[in-house]
Amino acid sequence: MPASNLIRLRGPYAPVLTPFKADLCIDTGRFVEHCRWLESQGMGLAIFGTNSEAASVSLDERIELTEALVAAGVDPMKLMPGAGLCAIPEAVRLTRHALSIGAPGVLVLPPYYFKTPSEDGLFAYYSELVEQVGDARLALYLYHFPQMSQVPITVALIERLLKRYPDTIAGLKDSSGDWDNTRTMIERFASHGQGFSVFPSSESTMTRAIPLGAAGCISATNNVNPARVRALFDLLDAKGDASEIESLQRDVDAVRSIFQRLPMIAAMKSTLARARDARGWNIVRPPLQSFDESAARDLDAQLARIGFELAPQQA
Amino acid sequence: MPASNLIRLRGPYAPVLTPFKADLCIDTGRFVEHCRWLESQGMGLAIFGTNSEAASVSLDERIELTEALVAAGVDPMKLMPGAGLCAIPEAVRLTRHALSIGAPGVLVLPPYYFKTPSEDGLFAYYSELVEQVGDARLALYLYHFPQMSQVPITVALIERLLKRYPDTIAGLKDSSGDWDNTRTMIERFASHGQGFSVFPSSESTMTRAIPLGAAGCISATNNVNPARVRALFDLLDAKGDASEIESLQRDVDAVRSIFQRLPMIAAMKSTLARARDARGWNIVRPPLQSFDESAARDLDAQLARIGFELAPQQA
Repeated sequence: MPASNLIRLRGPYAPVLTPFKADLCIDTGRFVEHCRWLESQGMGLAIFGTNSEAASVSLDERIELTEALVAAGVDPMKLMPGAGLCAIPEAVRLTRHALSIGAPGVLVLPPYYFKTPSEDGLFAYYSELVEQVGDARLALYLYHFPQMSQVPITVALIERLLKRYPDTIAGLKDSSGDWDNTRTMIERFASHGQGFSVFPSSESTMTRAIPLGAAGCISATNNVNPARVRALFDLLDAKGDASEIESLQRDVDAVRSIFQRLPMIAAMKSTLARARDARGWNIVRPPLQSFDESAARDLDAQLARIGFELAPQQA
Repeated sequence: MPASNLIRLRGPYAPVLTPFKADLCIDTGRFVEHCRWLESQGMGLAIFGTNSEAASVSLDERIELTEALVAAGVDPMKLMPGAGLCAIPEAVRLTRHALSIGAPGVLVLPPYYFKTPSEDGLFAYYSELVEQVGDARLALYLYHFPQMSQVPITVALIERLLKRYPDTIAGLKDSSGDWDNTRTMIERFASHGQGFSVFPSSESTMTRAIPLGAAGCISATNNVNPARVRALFDLLDAKGDASEIESLQRDVDAVRSIFQRLPMIAAMKSTLARARDARGWNIVRPPLQSFDESAARDLDAQLARIGFELAPQQA
């Protein structure tokens, strides 16, 4: 078995939604249940991504939630925790914790408070993180989401990082929604050295992206439609039947396109609340806002029209 | 003496620069020295603002630095700590800590990861913070810095917050650099209820802003030019001699305009490094970058041309 920093992750991941209680505390039990269900549906667990409201979750809460998953028997090899925090000491702490529980990779936003940082400054951020973590097991996935972070991860930055840390820099999540950028990332880097896993942020790109060399996808809607996205990935991975792929791609696109037009986090939580008969699922932390009754009914009606139903949770 | 949430802060504040050591750890001793010097020059201490690189400083480090100031005998009434963190539990923890050591106000950024939050969502963020802190002593200053946070604090939001928490919402730092916005904030809110302290982000506005009712300024360059900015504030506050005010305003503008054209944090740190003969002052945390020798020499030459010298530190 290769050192863990030489493993390159593959497959579909869900940026796991974080459930809260009425007092806005974390609902750890429900979080663990949701993770176990996603795992049972074939998903990797990108805990503490944007759709996890990670920015609204404290460092201590992230560590506690991760510990709760491990205690509940979730396979740490399925985890890709978000560990990008603007303050390097906090990013180091979270990354070390991820390594300590056996996670095979972390997903790291650039520091996003200061705008228009230089390429040297961003290189220094990632470089400090790698050096201060100081652990050969580290596999770091870069998180490119310019609309949210305002700080892009450029080709030039990736090249410099790969040159300096060829074993450690393991891939990229591309949340730009810009197919040209995703294709560029795959073509330039996917076959680099040990490999470089490019994860687009939507299952809608899979039929194009996987044959080019993408590693999978890390997509919000994998929280609600995991089994079919997994099936599509497996079919593509096995170079399966083209018409079957086309049909399944159309299928997952139909679900995606409904959620994509909405505030996705609140919409997915509303869907989980209805399907699991658990009103608490609706709760988000400010500044986000929950769906009201009318938005929820409208979403339900749209999903009913395409015959979508959330897969049940195992007892 | 009124309850501390009924005090409205006034005067010039420095968003205190945070010194680091070569290994990027905080240089606590130098931080305390700098704060004591600023205090001796008549500055309030807006620790953990943008210019403090607060985004790059961990929550634990902020608490330790605050404790160090109190232990060194800095007057807690001079402090206005930055406590705006995207995760409400962390903002609550930092705000409670500030209250526990006797700080008469905290400066609170809006949550800045999620872009284009609704006004309801921002209201809910501040409202949750106030309710969860649950301390009648809380005086909260809103921090408007749309270029950095991407999330503006609007007139409508302030009106809603003042209506709900008239004693607690105590003022605003306006870092927009937009004089029309600053004037609007002063005219609409400065004489509201218990008063509402508007702090522009540059001493260059003082001659216009103080007579209108601004409370002072919270300006980066107060880190290097504190005594003259204090003198200007005091003159304006006492409705002093107009030609003396004009001359002093021109004086502080000359210094401000040099730094304003540069990456201000690195430039001010470079100036402190030279004046204090302490190379460590140059250090910034990524993604920011320190000045190189040539940029430092150029800045020195510009400052020399206007006869600027940093006031010495007391032994």
